[in-house]
Amino acid sequence: MCFLCILRETLLREEVLKRFKPIFYPKSIAVVGALRDPNSFGARAIKTVIDLGYPGKLYPINPKVDGILGLKVYPSVTQVPGPIEFATICVPAHAVPKIMEECVEKGVKAVHIYSAGFSETGTQEGRKLEEDVVEIAKKGDIRVIGPNCEGIYCPESKVSTFSGSSGDVGSVGFFSQSGGHAMNLLIQARVLEICFSKVVSYGNACDLDGADFLEYFAEDPKSNIIAMYIEGVKDGRRFFDLLKNIARKKPTLIFKGGVSKAGARAAESHTGALAGSSAIWDAVFKQTGAVKVSSRDELANTLLVFLHQLRPSNRKVAFINAGGGNSVFAADTLEQAGLEVPTLLPNTIKELRQFIPIPGTSLKNPLDLHRYIIHIDRVIRIVAKDSRFGAIIVALYPDFMLTYTAEVKDFRDITRGIIRAKKSLDIPLTATIRTERVGLTGEIERLKAQDRLIKAGIPVFSSILMAAKAIANAVGYQEFLEKSLNK
Amino acid sequence: MCFLCILRETLLREEVLKRFKPIFYPKSIAVVGALRDPNSFGARAIKTVIDLGYPGKLYPINPKVDGILGLKVYPSVTQVPGPIEFATICVPAHAVPKIMEECVEKGVKAVHIYSAGFSETGTQEGRKLEEDVVEIAKKGDIRVIGPNCEGIYCPESKVSTFSGSSGDVGSVGFFSQSGGHAMNLLIQARVLEICFSKVVSYGNACDLDGADFLEYFAEDPKSNIIAMYIEGVKDGRRFFDLLKNIARKKPTLIFKGGVSKAGARAAESHTGALAGSSAIWDAVFKQTGAVKVSSRDELANTLLVFLHQLRPSNRKVAFINAGGGNSVFAADTLEQAGLEVPTLLPNTIKELRQFIPIPGTSLKNPLDLHRYIIHIDRVIRIVAKDSRFGAIIVALYPDFMLTYTAEVKDFRDITRGIIRAKKSLDIPLTATIRTERVGLTGEIERLKAQDRLIKAGIPVFSSILMAAKAIANAVGYQEFLEKSLNK
Repeated sequence: MCFLCILRETLLREEVLKRFKPIFYPKSIAVVGALRDPNSFGARAIKTVIDLGYPGKLYPINPKVDGILGLKVYPSVTQVPGPIEFATICVPAHAVPKIMEECVEKGVKAVHIYSAGFSETGTQEGRKLEEDVVEIAKKGDIRVIGPNCEGIYCPESKVSTFSGSSGDVGSVGFFSQSGGHAMNLLIQARVLEICFSKVVSYGNACDLDGADFLEYFAEDPKSNIIAMYIEGVKDGRRFFDLLKNIARKKPTLIFKGGVSKAGARAAESHTGALAGSSAIWDAVFKQTGAVKVSSRDELANTLLVFLHQLRPSNRKVAFINAGGGNSVFAADTLEQAGLEVPTLLPNTIKELRQFIPIPGTSLKNPLDLHRYIIHIDRVIRIVAKDSRFGAIIVALYPDFMLTYTAEVKDFRDITRGIIRAKKSLDIPLTATIRTERVGLTGEIERLKAQDRLIKAGIPVFSSILMAAKAIANAVGYQEFLEKSLNK
Repeated sequence: MCFLCILRETLLREEVLKRFKPIFYPKSIAVVGALRDPNSFGARAIKTVIDLGYPGKLYPINPKVDGILGLKVYPSVTQVPGPIEFATICVPAHAVPKIMEECVEKGVKAVHIYSAGFSETGTQEGRKLEEDVVEIAKKGDIRVIGPNCEGIYCPESKVSTFSGSSGDVGSVGFFSQSGGHAMNLLIQARVLEICFSKVVSYGNACDLDGADFLEYFAEDPKSNIIAMYIEGVKDGRRFFDLLKNIARKKPTLIFKGGVSKAGARAAESHTGALAGSSAIWDAVFKQTGAVKVSSRDELANTLLVFLHQLRPSNRKVAFINAGGGNSVFAADTLEQAGLEVPTLLPNTIKELRQFIPIPGTSLKNPLDLHRYIIHIDRVIRIVAKDSRFGAIIVALYPDFMLTYTAEVKDFRDITRGIIRAKKSLDIPLTATIRTERVGLTGEIERLKAQDRLIKAGIPVFSSILMAAKAIANAVGYQEFLEKSLNK
């Protein structure tokens, strides 16, 4: 690349990062709206920012409230003494344009509009309101996130409009057209130790759209993996071109909502998005290397594989299991997800047969260990010697095993065995834990086992299907990268 | 039908029922095998039969044990004073032929062989042992269940080889080539109030095979719904002919294991079954009206629909939800499962808009009620006036709603609303409850809400996907019946 090209790229990068600085790293924040009810969005946002330990200036705004959580409340943004970089607006839709005008007057650089009641309603009034907001924002050179969304979360700068944010800094940049999906992924991610560099819920995308966030996360040095939930994009061409360039540099996971007729209609009433045909989207995935996930669960499970940098070298997996019917189901599930379940080599079987008797077990693949699951560490080590495998999955059933497998007295023995085996392993080792959810005993064991394994660096998938899809997604991405290198 | 035909059918029915009488309604039972360890299969089986209150004679057999749970233990079946109708054998595989010989001598009518180590091992020794068993059984006219399986459960006669059986009598006849699937379905079924007429786990099927159980359950007046997990059938033609006749009389659900190459191989090492091509099985489903389910979860969820006799009249569903992203996901999921999610009628929307404001909600379908979920009873009643719908699904998110929806103070208010609405309803009303499984709070609320709804006759599906598949399965069955009537 020539010097001028590098210079141009660097300048572009600087510009993109600068554009988002007032959003993710604001020196001052105003929260405009209902504050009296501690359950209101505004009151929660203030509490969250305080709890995270935000070091900048925080200004609650409400003409009818005097103070909140020890902070002085100002009647309007224009009456705040210092400058305001970022404002979160949570007033009824019809009052938003007025607040926006005040933000222009104040010189606010970026706003997040929580309020709903805009273009997503499909009403003329809602559409008009949104147009007004866009016009005012343009006039004042204000960047807008929303309306109709949950806003932003940046643990590094301790800024968040998502109540109850953990503050743990991670490397996943996630943007979502659904606030619910963003909130739930944050909840779900916590126990899985998936942490984020930044999260954005951007709803109707009246100004900043998926393509803008994609562009930002591509340049953001703190985001190594990009994940998104999108219902539609405004400028398909721009989005595609960006994606084509970015997905091969940073793994980019896309959960696309509105892939059916009814889903597309629901997307329109949700965020006013035009969903686009699923054939077009399939082509996008194929050409860009972006990883397609079809549910929030698949997104979380696939994130696990990329975060743990498992990089399965191929589609062959060894599935270590207990139970014959379960093994048949696992084999069907893995193969249908595009993985392969080849038979163990005769030598491997021979070595395992030294301590695993024939009756009630099967050592082909899936391995049905039955009660010899207690020898899990030895089994994993022996299976892992077979370098054909791209990954090993261990399936655990804590409540069943504790009830029916007399040898399993304490489930920690099983997880300890897996963790022991991992230490000497080259092949990616993963697990999945199932309980029947008929009471709390199984759930307690599941949560504890999951926590132990994750802390030891072993990703735990939420089901065999999710394990299969997550690993297949990761292999698919590897294959795409190799193919593009060879082109 | 002529008199002779009726007579012939009646005689055949009597014969089938008579054949299985010593299995499901034995007057005396022997449990042959390890008894000392309370966790052994034999000791558990004896305890279960005692706990159920079995009124017949129970004989534990073991030459090395004197007594168990207050019962005298006999050294062999031949030394038991009275007759033995049914014996459960749980000794090492190589010792089974000898026990079988003794059973012949004693005049035992049917046995269940728990022991593994037969044809499923793929070894010559295992195959030979199984052949020996078959030969001895033939000689003594003994019917065999197994080997390599969990045996039988008949709550009506208080007989069970499944430890921890509830004893609740129901109308589902379930036979399974996997003991694990049978045990787990029994566990799972308990909280869902799915109860069984009979359950059989029959493993290698050296004598009694899927076709035999199918034939029995077709005639059994206590079984209204037939469910099965099968890996292969010995006589495909007979199975198909039976199925063609039976599935249109009693809903017949088939979970077929081994539909992939790897799955078929796993099935072979599990029960020695030959799985058959999935194309053939797809044709079987199409021609017989048997309901295809692809997992144990789908089996349990589909059973719920049939047990509650929901009979959705068509594929159109109303999905009542909270959350925009979730609604898009629901619409995609329902449509991909073969259901339709048509927009509500203008009049319905108008009526709902009387108390549900526009911002943050959507009333097309899925309905995104947001915090107006507190009006769930009114919403259901109004939606149900639209007779186009074949079913209504309400999606609940207890932990999310209790955390973020200030209006939901007690989750019982929501379930009460649903139960209230159900009373005046013609359209099938169903629910699905999701929690993020990050702790116990959500799980406790889920279990409680599920229990309340199920007790009120509202089936609760384990996910939106399972709701979609279960309802689509039920509609598919209805459509098959209608089509065959019109032929």
